Amino acid sequence: MKITILIYEKYTALDVVGPYEALSNISGAEIYFAGVQKGLYGDNKNFKLDVPYSIDDITESDVLLIPGGFGIDAILNDKKIINWIKKIDTTTKFTTSVCSGALLLASTGLLEGRNVTTHWNRKEQLRKYNVNVVDERYVKDGKYITSAGVSAGIDMALYLISLIQNENTAKFIQLGMEYDPQPPFDCGSPNKLPKELLEKMKPKK
Amino acid sequence: MKITILIYEKYTALDVVGPYEALSNISGAEIYFAGVQKGLYGDNKNFKLDVPYSIDDITESDVLLIPGGFGIDAILNDKKIINWIKKIDTTTKFTTSVCSGALLLASTGLLEGRNVTTHWNRKEQLRKYNVNVVDERYVKDGKYITSAGVSAGIDMALYLISLIQNENTAKFIQLGMEYDPQPPFDCGSPNKLPKELLEKMKPKK
Repeated sequence: MKITILIYEKYTALDVVGPYEALSNISGAEIYFAGVQKGLYGDNKNFKLDVPYSIDDITESDVLLIPGGFGIDAILNDKKIINWIKKIDTTTKFTTSVCSGALLLASTGLLEGRNVTTHWNRKEQLRKYNVNVVDERYVKDGKYITSAGVSAGIDMALYLISLIQNENTAKFIQLGMEYDPQPPFDCGSPNKLPKELLEKMKPKK
Repeated sequence: MKITILIYEKYTALDVVGPYEALSNISGAEIYFAGVQKGLYGDNKNFKLDVPYSIDDITESDVLLIPGGFGIDAILNDKKIINWIKKIDTTTKFTTSVCSGALLLASTGLLEGRNVTTHWNRKEQLRKYNVNVVDERYVKDGKYITSAGVSAGIDMALYLISLIQNENTAKFIQLGMEYDPQPPFDCGSPNKLPKELLEKMKPKK
């Protein structure tokens, strides 16, 4: 089971590591972090991940995952990356995105006419790609699974494991990660935050 | 606001990145990843993080965070690390752990007599350190905050932000991360998994 995670400058660390932590616990899973070039890639803060593969090294993958991040806008029209995604997609069982990663996936045209989702603050931008943006934590349309913002990648990855393997494997992995979330506040979605707070909030993503 | 995250070989990636993603969104936060030596540190799978500081570089910190991981057992009696934790602890506002990181923190003696928690599969081991192990997602006792397994670090970090700054800041950051979890299965805690499945599960952590 070959799983490739595309990395670019200014990804969001949790978009990568939430799904990574779940997917890498699949028995026999091989995770490939791949960037346009190999080397160290930073998020937009203090985090630097070693990326051992160039996208040229990856010619097929069972799963492709595109994380989100502030850096996504800089590569939405990058022909090399877009052509690579399209090529890998011809080999995948599942092609997936977290958060604003859906924008890059949509920019390839592969999501046209499909049900998709993204970070709440990116939905307007995603609608421009001739897709049907839904308000779900994650949504599967054919072999394409897109998820909402940042932390939603964890939920999506566990669902994906239930498809790749089975529900019991997903449950074991969820228990291993002790993923029994108890957020201290009930405000992780814009419709849950008091309006006066939401108005003060500057876009984070 | 200086926040130091101790890194060692075979940490668990999400133990590090869940809290990192939340804490690094505090305005003015400076995150320091520190290991016994600087360099690349791997989790127990395919992940390699660049650690730009040696623990010798860090002499004080407002927050210290100790993540868990399979590698924790190898350093529970490491005098250099234990002495460093005790020294930094004299300067912190909060000293915290995620998952099995509580074992290392307990091994310093700083948690003696305190209410603490850890990964569900590490509780028996933690009880040997003369602490009171509780069944909570995270628990604060004085300036010490310990959390349950892996993903619990996200919940703990948001709570910590509400203490360091205020509840509104924590809520903004939670919304930015779209942390409105919807796990596909309700099985993230051992009392939620059917017994026949739990018995089949080999320890993951």
